Amino acid sequence: MAKRRFTVSELAVLLGAETVDSELLIDGIGTLQSAAENQLSFLHSGRYQSQLQASQAGAVLVRPEHRDAVRSIALVVDDPYIAYARATALFCEQSESSVGGINPLSTISESAVLGDGVSVDAHAVIGDRVVIGSGVTLGANSVIGPDCIIGENTRIAANVTLYNKITVGANCVIHSGAVIGADGFGFANNHGEWLKIHQLGGVTLGDRVEVGANTTIDRGALDDTVIGCGVILDNQIQIAHNVTIGDNTAIAGCTAIAGSTHIGKNCTIAGACAITGHLTIADGTHVTAMSLISKSILQAGAYSSGTVMESHQQWKRNAVRFRHLDELFHRVKKLEQL
Amino acid sequence: MAKRRFTVSELAVLLGAETVDSELLIDGIGTLQSAAENQLSFLHSGRYQSQLQASQAGAVLVRPEHRDAVRSIALVVDDPYIAYARATALFCEQSESSVGGINPLSTISESAVLGDGVSVDAHAVIGDRVVIGSGVTLGANSVIGPDCIIGENTRIAANVTLYNKITVGANCVIHSGAVIGADGFGFANNHGEWLKIHQLGGVTLGDRVEVGANTTIDRGALDDTVIGCGVILDNQIQIAHNVTIGDNTAIAGCTAIAGSTHIGKNCTIAGACAITGHLTIADGTHVTAMSLISKSILQAGAYSSGTVMESHQQWKRNAVRFRHLDELFHRVKKLEQL
Amino acid sequence: MAKRRFTVSELAVLLGAETVDSELLIDGIGTLQSAAENQLSFLHSGRYQSQLQASQAGAVLVRPEHRDAVRSIALVVDDPYIAYARATALFCEQSESSVGGINPLSTISESAVLGDGVSVDAHAVIGDRVVIGSGVTLGANSVIGPDCIIGENTRIAANVTLYNKITVGANCVIHSGAVIGADGFGFANNHGEWLKIHQLGGVTLGDRVEVGANTTIDRGALDDTVIGCGVILDNQIQIAHNVTIGDNTAIAGCTAIAGSTHIGKNCTIAGACAITGHLTIADGTHVTAMSLISKSILQAGAYSSGTVMESHQQWKRNAVRFRHLDELFHRVKKLEQL
Repeated sequence: MAKRRFTVSELAVLLGAETVDSELLIDGIGTLQSAAENQLSFLHSGRYQSQLQASQAGAVLVRPEHRDAVRSIALVVDDPYIAYARATALFCEQSESSVGGINPLSTISESAVLGDGVSVDAHAVIGDRVVIGSGVTLGANSVIGPDCIIGENTRIAANVTLYNKITVGANCVIHSGAVIGADGFGFANNHGEWLKIHQLGGVTLGDRVEVGANTTIDRGALDDTVIGCGVILDNQIQIAHNVTIGDNTAIAGCTAIAGSTHIGKNCTIAGACAITGHLTIADGTHVTAMSLISKSILQAGAYSSGTVMESHQQWKRNAVRFRHLDELFHRVKKLEQL
Repeated sequence: MAKRRFTVSELAVLLGAETVDSELLIDGIGTLQSAAENQLSFLHSGRYQSQLQASQAGAVLVRPEHRDAVRSIALVVDDPYIAYARATALFCEQSESSVGGINPLSTISESAVLGDGVSVDAHAVIGDRVVIGSGVTLGANSVIGPDCIIGENTRIAANVTLYNKITVGANCVIHSGAVIGADGFGFANNHGEWLKIHQLGGVTLGDRVEVGANTTIDRGALDDTVIGCGVILDNQIQIAHNVTIGDNTAIAGCTAIAGSTHIGKNCTIAGACAITGHLTIADGTHVTAMSLISKSILQAGAYSSGTVMESHQQWKRNAVRFRHLDELFHRVKKLEQL
Repeated sequence: MAKRRFTVSELAVLLGAETVDSELLIDGIGTLQSAAENQLSFLHSGRYQSQLQASQAGAVLVRPEHRDAVRSIALVVDDPYIAYARATALFCEQSESSVGGINPLSTISESAVLGDGVSVDAHAVIGDRVVIGSGVTLGANSVIGPDCIIGENTRIAANVTLYNKITVGANCVIHSGAVIGADGFGFANNHGEWLKIHQLGGVTLGDRVEVGANTTIDRGALDDTVIGCGVILDNQIQIAHNVTIGDNTAIAGCTAIAGSTHIGKNCTIAGACAITGHLTIADGTHVTAMSLISKSILQAGAYSSGTVMESHQQWKRNAVRFRHLDELFHRVKKLEQL
């Protein structure tokens, strides 16, 4: 596939940098250390300023104060990291398998309604009464169950599964292996056997949601599971039935959220965390990696649990002691009372 | 799809409630707070009794002692939660993509044997010598490897993978993205390189097993990995080779069980736990969220590990101290000996 | 499928054991406890020597010193476990759905180049300009995006997804549900909203890599994510963008590795661990189950974090005390100063 190319002058306009007059062609992006002469780079943090000297990059996005340290062409912007993010969109080639139009090997229900410019790749399946907005791309071997609604320009990768009655907003990205709308884990214990509680709710995703590879979002028991606008979910996240997540919250990989928990807006939850069910997490809460959250968080802030790494030998001695920690507190109290 | 509707009188009969004479049509279920006048609700716990007053539900499943607190029609049962579970089956519409009969775009080996009333959706693949019981539904793009046996009325969703020689009982549910029978993680270290131990066993699932979305169950090394009857597995669970799980055990999302561990009957394992290999877990054991189980549990009871959430600043101070906990015990002992 | 059979004499030659003269036919492998008279077994560790007496196995792989304890035929080798691993390859039947040749229901781009003896199963999709080495097998419903390169004899199971521009070495195994090359989790926070950083790098896997079921390996932001030769990855592992993993490292199920972390050669990382981003882990490092690694490890050794299991009642008392651990150290210090 032909690479996209821009002159440095064009990039300055496209990225909102100060005007530059250069016909140098740029066809990619690299780090300061790896970028070649026909590539763009960026100085994100003053920490990396020393790398400017040795960089081969043809042009570098920098803040005004670093303008003079650039050996090649400086592209001066207020926020180089935001400008870099915008530049990645310019150089991004279409990913996944070859799309464009409706592949004749896809299976689309006669009652489905597709907007303009929809791409459906080979062996994808679109169920009854599905409504797909214009500009949507659906990857190979993905399955969209009956009564789903997909908003405009949403991109669904290969091997994605949406069960029935799932609503996805506009401009979302759903990665391969994601499963949206499987049954929530609801069972009643009937004299020792588990009686299935069929899950009658659906799932609603807002606009601009990103769902990572192999992430699962279960349908609600009665009401919907709801993911707000601008929420970004990394890979292998588990979101149980009737969870709600507020706008612009970010969750990193392998975190699990149990049923009916409400997570606020603008939270950041690190990877490999577990959040138990029926909790409320305040807007603006930050949780560090591998934390167990088993109580509601009513006040924004940063929260953690667990212990930190040490040598296995040392850890074994300490971990055994943890089992007697309460006893130790009593012993110290006794000493204090002497 | 037309909603299912029942009169309240019909529901009383179907759910085993005391007889009621009402032609009011009910077409769904809601919580006490969300149910509309044409919906059924239920009072599961006395804690929610105050919601009865404000509920708009057309009928409410209650215990005898709450009969008089219902403003609309009381459906009196011994166990409202069990009755609610049964009601969800009445109102559940067929999920996933449109099924019914053998989709001509599916690929079925000539040596496979299918029972009566089997549904196979588009692009599903059924391998050589597979035997599928009557009433089974197989979702779009699912793959059933050679020599598998699927019991009656089992429902396999879209994008499921069964490798070869997998036996699934009757009335099971296997959700999308589940992978049953991939190779167990068996390798011999041969002078620093890993030599693959091919996994010659299979996987056997009992009747009424539920397998959540993206859950993986590996095939055994020599003997089978075995999941008992009535076991319910949530999403993204990892079950390694030669694990056995006893009847009616429930495991929540993202829990990982290492190889050759034997889990008893009627256990409940919460989400995000890790259970190491070659252990025995007694019948009736309960494990709380995000616990590490690295020793056998020989006596039923509730078990936990880890620490609880606190502010990140406070946690950092405590976590650093944990690394000196053994030393602290020695210091306290010394003080006690003064 | 007909079972493979060998005489004990043949097995001795094939497995490098001392010569044996026996026409006894062996058609499978079992543990000492389960093996039948027509099966091979092995004594891996002296701990199990007592099982030799009762074993029904027709032949047993043993070290020289256990030769005389075998009741049936001893196959004497230096390392019975390595010999057992080699024997599993002899008795392994072809797994997954029926392969052999190019299934006419697969979809292969005209610009793709396939080597000799490639098998492509039903509904698999191969994108533009893909290059596939000889002897590769591609399972049903798998999707290989444009510009991928797959090395010789690599085996890709059903329902695997490779995005575009992924390079896989020779003799790899990729299990079902694995997703390689989804976007790394890169976003810039733009006044509270998340601006996507398109991921322009790829993924490179060396030779002899095993990727477990539902494992995800993200593409790099600018440079590639790189998995070394001989690396073995269990199920449901998450490898973020720009991670590098050195040769012959083994990682067990459900472990998550955050972005730009570099893991050395010959490491073993147990299951359910979390390793945060931008770290360096030394060659030969071992990490125990469910550990959080949040700092670089510069010296080889074994590392751990967390606490060990105890009864829930006891744990609750200790976990509450952990929140006051730093305070306790101060109290003890005060006592010591009295």
